[in-house]
Amino acid sequence: MSAAEPGFTLTCPVPITGRKSIVLGHGSGGRLTAQLIRDLFLPAFDNEILRKLDDQAVLDVAGARIAMTTDSFVVTPLVFPGGDIGELAINGTVNDLAMSGAQPLYLSAAFILEEGLPMAELAQLIESMSSAAKAAEVAVVTGDTKVVNRGSADKLFITTTGVGLVPDGVKISASNARAGDQIILSGTIGDHGMAVFSKREGLEFEGSIVSDTAPLYKLVRAMLEAGEIHALRDPTRGGLATSLCEIAVASGVGMELDSRAIPVREDVKAACEILGMDPLYVANEGKLVAFVDASSADAVLKAMCALPEGRDAVVIGQAVQAHGGMVLLKTEIGGTRLLDLPFTEQLPRIC
Amino acid sequence: MSAAEPGFTLTCPVPITGRKSIVLGHGSGGRLTAQLIRDLFLPAFDNEILRKLDDQAVLDVAGARIAMTTDSFVVTPLVFPGGDIGELAINGTVNDLAMSGAQPLYLSAAFILEEGLPMAELAQLIESMSSAAKAAEVAVVTGDTKVVNRGSADKLFITTTGVGLVPDGVKISASNARAGDQIILSGTIGDHGMAVFSKREGLEFEGSIVSDTAPLYKLVRAMLEAGEIHALRDPTRGGLATSLCEIAVASGVGMELDSRAIPVREDVKAACEILGMDPLYVANEGKLVAFVDASSADAVLKAMCALPEGRDAVVIGQAVQAHGGMVLLKTEIGGTRLLDLPFTEQLPRIC
Repeated sequence: MSAAEPGFTLTCPVPITGRKSIVLGHGSGGRLTAQLIRDLFLPAFDNEILRKLDDQAVLDVAGARIAMTTDSFVVTPLVFPGGDIGELAINGTVNDLAMSGAQPLYLSAAFILEEGLPMAELAQLIESMSSAAKAAEVAVVTGDTKVVNRGSADKLFITTTGVGLVPDGVKISASNARAGDQIILSGTIGDHGMAVFSKREGLEFEGSIVSDTAPLYKLVRAMLEAGEIHALRDPTRGGLATSLCEIAVASGVGMELDSRAIPVREDVKAACEILGMDPLYVANEGKLVAFVDASSADAVLKAMCALPEGRDAVVIGQAVQAHGGMVLLKTEIGGTRLLDLPFTEQLPRIC
Repeated sequence: MSAAEPGFTLTCPVPITGRKSIVLGHGSGGRLTAQLIRDLFLPAFDNEILRKLDDQAVLDVAGARIAMTTDSFVVTPLVFPGGDIGELAINGTVNDLAMSGAQPLYLSAAFILEEGLPMAELAQLIESMSSAAKAAEVAVVTGDTKVVNRGSADKLFITTTGVGLVPDGVKISASNARAGDQIILSGTIGDHGMAVFSKREGLEFEGSIVSDTAPLYKLVRAMLEAGEIHALRDPTRGGLATSLCEIAVASGVGMELDSRAIPVREDVKAACEILGMDPLYVANEGKLVAFVDASSADAVLKAMCALPEGRDAVVIGQAVQAHGGMVLLKTEIGGTRLLDLPFTEQLPRIC
């Protein structure tokens, strides 16, 4: 209620939404990021495509449906168990394309380097990008290199932008989930976030936990061939819970999840417990969550399980007509918990 | 000659090409940047499109010829006489598209923000991006926001990537200039670089010199309608001389320029003299240099002069069969000077 409404003059001395400067949480992918987008970016660049708030834009260019997506990678440390910033910069962007059903085709890569970055370190990361691009079957076709003086960046930031081709008839969007859809998760959650965090903090369980970074287009292609997919997300920043909350709001559906069905590795679960983190909110880089028409859910699940990147795929719940926009989780002890967008950052600079 | 060749065992203790870490010059757009691309990026990402080393890639997507280009903007200060990083991030990328003859259509924008950046400063720069996008008739359709902790970036970096449509029949490339082509420059050089540098250093002539940042697609469209364009470049980092050297090498032609024909504003010339800089190597952000078939050079020049962004357009020389790959400048006192790629950075962080 605003101060302008009659009979109510209360104003909040520390407005939650009106922050005067940027905080780490603005990059969390959670509520503060959403505020920044809603209050600043959407009004400035307003157009129909941007308003959809998908992780990629689908454009009509000379009759072809082109998907386009961009991501800056600022992960620290640059190398972590199971991957590095170079591999992440390829897989993160091809996966955002794949989540529209598009076949990733071409990537651009823009580098911001800090003066003093050892050439050998850069060469190793470029080599890793090269291998990841080959594995994902995309070509890096254009790029840019900027160098900033020592202390003006943290070693290396990479921004990749991808374009891909959306096949005829495919219409996948965060706003397209429907009541009755089966919610399928492609594998265990929390691996990437905990791998980066434990490396960064030098924690003991480092080594056993490795990032799941992987390209997902082949999995998506197999799913599209097997059945009818309505919505897809790769739950990166903000984790599975954030992706589900966004889809629930965008599609206006409710969701009912079974926490016992959601796979979490034992070592990831233990690390999260020690650190007081919730794996539902921890970033993944090689997983997807799909909203699949109930009629073809079995076929899609079978197709997923046949591929290495989907071998642990499992139905974790359903989209429902009731409580639109809300995600309910049946807990292990039989209670019900409401999942919400995180306000700020559990783990900064995770990608 | 390497140490392995018989009868010659000299090795250089400080190899010029084998630097062990990144220096500012690797971002100069000059010889060190070229080395980094040739030694590191090209071998890693090798493909036919990247090998052309144009400022943009031209891709075949479902039968359409799509141009794609990316640039990170790290200019300091964020606001300078005549423009700011927001405006630059739009114009720089639409101009790289336009230099292939493509009509710029869609842009992505990825932001790396430093914790503590005042929200009002960010809002002003986003507003400026928005105005520039409207003026250039492009839509920002997707984006990303990352925040890094205080001290890990310098306030704000923006990476924009653009896609555009290359009209049928247009074939413009740095490797396409031909002996006999007239070299047309669209206006005065050095304005942008000197505007940013004088603001950064708090120099007296600040204020009289303003950046030339401007979108150039309308100018390119008028030129394409008027005649036959073989090569186009917007001489940004490294300035006019670097662009010409790159085209000379890529096309295997020589060039003969008349220094008296190259327009430089009096205040820019004076500032360059005081600072010991050569305006031929200073960045521009709203100028282009074109290689035009001699048969239509008059018509193209006339079409350029009819538009505000080309009103000072002028023929500055010719491409010639002789001394392929070399750019010769007839100096004001009648001598001849060989222009070469700059080794390193005259003015770092200019865009």
